[in-house]
Amino acid sequence: MIRKKIIFNILGKLLVGESVFLFLSLLVSLFYKESDTQAFLYSGLITFAVGGGSYLTSKGVKKEMGKREGYIIVSLVWIVFSIFGCLPFLFSGSISSVTDAFFETMSGFTTTGSSILNNIEELPHGILFWRSLTQWLGGMGIIVMFLAILPTLGIGGRELFIAEVPGPAPDKLTPRIKETARNLWGLYASFTLAECLLLMLGGMPFFDAINHSLTTMATGGYSTKQASIGYFDSIYLQYVIIAFMFIAGTNFTLSYGMLTGRMSKIFKDEEFRFYSFVIVLFTIVIGGGIYLTSSMGVEQAFRDALFTVVSIITTTGYATADYLLWMPFLGMLIFVLMFVGGSAGSTGGGVKVVRVLLLFKNSFYELKRLIHPNAVIPIRYNQRVVDQRTVTNILAFFVFYIIIFLASTVLMSFWSSDIFSALSAVATTLGNIGPGFSEIGPMENFSKMPDLAKWFLSFLMLLGRLELFTVLILFSPSFWRD
Amino acid sequence: MIRKKIIFNILGKLLVGESVFLFLSLLVSLFYKESDTQAFLYSGLITFAVGGGSYLTSKGVKKEMGKREGYIIVSLVWIVFSIFGCLPFLFSGSISSVTDAFFETMSGFTTTGSSILNNIEELPHGILFWRSLTQWLGGMGIIVMFLAILPTLGIGGRELFIAEVPGPAPDKLTPRIKETARNLWGLYASFTLAECLLLMLGGMPFFDAINHSLTTMATGGYSTKQASIGYFDSIYLQYVIIAFMFIAGTNFTLSYGMLTGRMSKIFKDEEFRFYSFVIVLFTIVIGGGIYLTSSMGVEQAFRDALFTVVSIITTTGYATADYLLWMPFLGMLIFVLMFVGGSAGSTGGGVKVVRVLLLFKNSFYELKRLIHPNAVIPIRYNQRVVDQRTVTNILAFFVFYIIIFLASTVLMSFWSSDIFSALSAVATTLGNIGPGFSEIGPMENFSKMPDLAKWFLSFLMLLGRLELFTVLILFSPSFWRD
Repeated sequence: MIRKKIIFNILGKLLVGESVFLFLSLLVSLFYKESDTQAFLYSGLITFAVGGGSYLTSKGVKKEMGKREGYIIVSLVWIVFSIFGCLPFLFSGSISSVTDAFFETMSGFTTTGSSILNNIEELPHGILFWRSLTQWLGGMGIIVMFLAILPTLGIGGRELFIAEVPGPAPDKLTPRIKETARNLWGLYASFTLAECLLLMLGGMPFFDAINHSLTTMATGGYSTKQASIGYFDSIYLQYVIIAFMFIAGTNFTLSYGMLTGRMSKIFKDEEFRFYSFVIVLFTIVIGGGIYLTSSMGVEQAFRDALFTVVSIITTTGYATADYLLWMPFLGMLIFVLMFVGGSAGSTGGGVKVVRVLLLFKNSFYELKRLIHPNAVIPIRYNQRVVDQRTVTNILAFFVFYIIIFLASTVLMSFWSSDIFSALSAVATTLGNIGPGFSEIGPMENFSKMPDLAKWFLSFLMLLGRLELFTVLILFSPSFWRD
Repeated sequence: MIRKKIIFNILGKLLVGESVFLFLSLLVSLFYKESDTQAFLYSGLITFAVGGGSYLTSKGVKKEMGKREGYIIVSLVWIVFSIFGCLPFLFSGSISSVTDAFFETMSGFTTTGSSILNNIEELPHGILFWRSLTQWLGGMGIIVMFLAILPTLGIGGRELFIAEVPGPAPDKLTPRIKETARNLWGLYASFTLAECLLLMLGGMPFFDAINHSLTTMATGGYSTKQASIGYFDSIYLQYVIIAFMFIAGTNFTLSYGMLTGRMSKIFKDEEFRFYSFVIVLFTIVIGGGIYLTSSMGVEQAFRDALFTVVSIITTTGYATADYLLWMPFLGMLIFVLMFVGGSAGSTGGGVKVVRVLLLFKNSFYELKRLIHPNAVIPIRYNQRVVDQRTVTNILAFFVFYIIIFLASTVLMSFWSSDIFSALSAVATTLGNIGPGFSEIGPMENFSKMPDLAKWFLSFLMLLGRLELFTVLILFSPSFWRD
């Protein structure tokens, strides 16, 4: 039997936590003396009351939680947070439709960054800050999910994700998990602060700097400007953001190891090397393509390419250039990148670099297996043999990704003027990226989509963010069987 | 060391076989007293001479062939056949460019059916007959490849492909392989003849009937009319062709079993059931969609849907309706179908129904495995447990398919005006289907593509037709290591 009390208990606690951040946004609103003060006051109080009530009525429940409760809680957290998180948008009148508000908030908490807003610069500061905070909190949630929850649920093979982590060993996860989480959150916050300072050094106003730092580290991509990073006509700022997007797309346990003196390990990590290789390769090809087909200088061509490549592969979704205007060949490269995603243990979404790497390895090893049918040829990753079970899991993940991608595109093409627009809408939401192609390109947004499409895409964001299985398993009959 | 002599020996014998069919086309040409007589005479003589020479110089070679020679021969057969097979097109002046002639011939032998011809109805009968014959021979080659060659090379798990075959058991493949091949070729020829008679009964002229029968059973799709099957404004003819496309996309060993009195087995076969289910499902949705969005009657709407669905899933590529004119939702369904393909052991291309079915199964079983991490949950297919090695092979196949699909689209988008056109060009050639979307829709053709694109697409046809691995393995360094 599912123990409902523990679910209410944990969700209640987390909602109280969300209310704290709503009150933080209230302070921003009070500081700027804008019209959204009441919206945050009410949203915060409602969230606090519901969370607190849920917590109190389930107090005293035994703390041990089963796997099934774990799956349910993970999926529910993102949904519940989005339900309460969209209140300020509605109460302040910044977004008038419930659909749009939910879409924008889910896009925030899943660090997707697809937006329905056409008037970003007219919105009150509190609302913009809250919008960025949803992404930052979502990123924080993802780090702990990868670290603590997915491994115990058996998804993806934890040895791949936290290979070099200075944290929990598989058999004693719970005792040290809090310490590891605290360390990595500290790192996450420090990076955010560092980026903010560097952006301000480049002349970005404090409010814009803090917002962009929050959404960079989350690989979210929400901007305080309608034109995204393209608004800031500064080469320095672009390079700072590129650097921090790159960091945000790197496994945080690797960055932690690097900063605590194990510098060399990061360069030996196969995922990090592949991640860097893909970025360099795509930047060279795309940069060369832009240079040859436009009147741009070398530096700008390669900067536009690097920014876009890093923004897409890390699933951030910031824009400086409009890749819709590039030749189809270059656009297609961007489309392919949408399926790679960030590193495992980063805040990036998508398939994840390590999975792509192992998919490649398994396929190429299969050629060897055909040539030497009697030899046992296991896959190695970071000098260790990868368990067959992990390989099967990753392959099943990839197949689900493709099935969901195609089936969703069929549905989305129902609401789209052309098929490629539908393909890209699904790719960008399922991969938690942000912008797509055609109607929803980097200079456009999702506002014109029908309501049903927005609800469906919100679901895809959740599905992608929670590594598919976490949500899909809830639809499996045997999950609910006792 | 690769034994070159055995390769020359076998290829030589097969080329002599090809020359026989060139001389057969010569007879057609003589009968119609058209301008292509000399072209066939010379082509036949050259092919016979080269084949015979190659055979004679390598006579007396030991007949036992290694796996590596097997791989090389399979890939070379299709290439060499296309090189000699394009001679009549060139000699007769029907196709003036070498690139176009090779493309058209490779598209024939791989049973793809993508064409560069704009003047089909003006061509001599001999040329049209030879064009259809390339497909029919290609289909014949595929049957024997699935039956005899792929299993010994370890690709795809023969227990899946020839589950119910009244033929060779795994340990005694060679002795009975000839008998089985003869039986299935007999069946293939009988179906061709039966279709021809039924088409003539419906008023189709003999020459058109025989050509369409040849290309239906091969799931090739070459037509003697520029407007494809749409030219024949006959409901009866369309249903006959639908029925035979359906048969051609079914495992031939199943059809053989059915005709030799094991009727019930076919309906118990999981692949056949899934294949039928997909066709019914897609026909209902697409037929309903056409009916609701056009002024067509019910019968025509569902006939157009059924014809297109069967034509695409079996990878035949005949057209009666232009799916480019349908709403994007319906077009996207057709695009998805391009990735399914025919049954294993049929003449259809693509990923193959059984692989898609097992990919689905593995992914859904993975959900069960996550819920019960300590249980061993193997995949079952037709009441038998599927070997883990087979599952890994199928998954590796699928990943290669997607990698090749995306990488090729990147390349093709270099030569295309839009990305979706590039996506569909790759999907249709890699899947051996024929028509694509946008510039290469069912009422268009590939003539306007640049030469380089045509060569590249010819390679994709070969890659798809030979189940990827057979060709890819030749690019693997360890294949050539002794």
